[in-house]
Amino acid sequence: MVRRIIPRFIAFEGLDGSGTTTQAKRLVERLEQAGTAAVYTYEPSAFLPGATIRRLLAREEPVHPTTMAFLYAADRNEHLFRDKTGVVALLERGKSVVTDRYLFSSLAYQGSEADREFVRTLNERFPLPEHLVYLDVDPDTAIRRTVQRGEADIYENLNVQRRVAAAYEAVLDEFSGSGMAVHRIDGNAGQDEVFASIWRAIGG
Amino acid sequence: MVRRIIPRFIAFEGLDGSGTTTQAKRLVERLEQAGTAAVYTYEPSAFLPGATIRRLLAREEPVHPTTMAFLYAADRNEHLFRDKTGVVALLERGKSVVTDRYLFSSLAYQGSEADREFVRTLNERFPLPEHLVYLDVDPDTAIRRTVQRGEADIYENLNVQRRVAAAYEAVLDEFSGSGMAVHRIDGNAGQDEVFASIWRAIGG
Repeated sequence: MVRRIIPRFIAFEGLDGSGTTTQAKRLVERLEQAGTAAVYTYEPSAFLPGATIRRLLAREEPVHPTTMAFLYAADRNEHLFRDKTGVVALLERGKSVVTDRYLFSSLAYQGSEADREFVRTLNERFPLPEHLVYLDVDPDTAIRRTVQRGEADIYENLNVQRRVAAAYEAVLDEFSGSGMAVHRIDGNAGQDEVFASIWRAIGG
Repeated sequence: MVRRIIPRFIAFEGLDGSGTTTQAKRLVERLEQAGTAAVYTYEPSAFLPGATIRRLLAREEPVHPTTMAFLYAADRNEHLFRDKTGVVALLERGKSVVTDRYLFSSLAYQGSEADREFVRTLNERFPLPEHLVYLDVDPDTAIRRTVQRGEADIYENLNVQRRVAAAYEAVLDEFSGSGMAVHRIDGNAGQDEVFASIWRAIGG
């Protein structure tokens, strides 16, 4: 698999409750402190396709799983290539870009609902980040955190988290020879300890 | 090109101002009068992905052309496969379905903005209708009608209409051996005359 890798582009991935948002924002702060201009972005994006996805995730309207896969690809394209404020434009202005979730989320979360080969094809055109930080947490820990935040019902979601964790493992394996640096970080510890591991892996 | 063709599914295509909406609705009425249960549908759809596209077409927010191609594919998937109210569900309940625009619009309109091969790939998984009715109007006539409806600025859009008309010709050629019945109808005449031609081609 030969695929374009974008320097200074860093993606955080992991289960819901694994800490991707907290740690991606900390990394941006720390990079800025170290004198590196950095921007925090996320998927689903802040743009209209991302807003549409968030409305659908809130179950405002049920849609076909394949429709979601197409929408995530639309949003990812916009996140990357949007004029002036997309990832590529930010990188061209010399910024480092840290994204809270990227195409690996589509492969792990949607691969199980929509047909996995199809989701892979939809995402083929998107470049890889220089660094992928995978926050590895036990599904039990992840679910406890989301329940504490009032975001999940433990009985509904534990099986989903286990399935997604297994899907992430398969995705990490798949990209092991891609040339992208994959950092598997133990995310079960406290926030400071987790961040110290991330900084050792990336910032050093 | 071997592609699934769906019986009792009829698509109307043509330039803006060619009369697809008027004639598709007339066909549904006439089919109903003839004792055939029929439903009028359209793209962009009435569902949330379609609403997102309409907001973008109204230039609420400018997006990358490839993002639009992904969004149209998302909306088309929903239009076809949505639970209970999608085209396939309607057909399974014994209805005929008449759609005002379908994948040929993506190929004709977006093929010129986004990369044509890519748009084709995105639309490969969608089945073909039994009948494609192409309302063939002069770009000048089409633009005059949209100007009369207050939808277009003649100077902005005439070149676009000419380019899309040429793109439709290429698309019709491409599908000439597909097994789908392609009806090229002269759409320059009055509404009644145009409908009479359509009914002779399809209803007879």
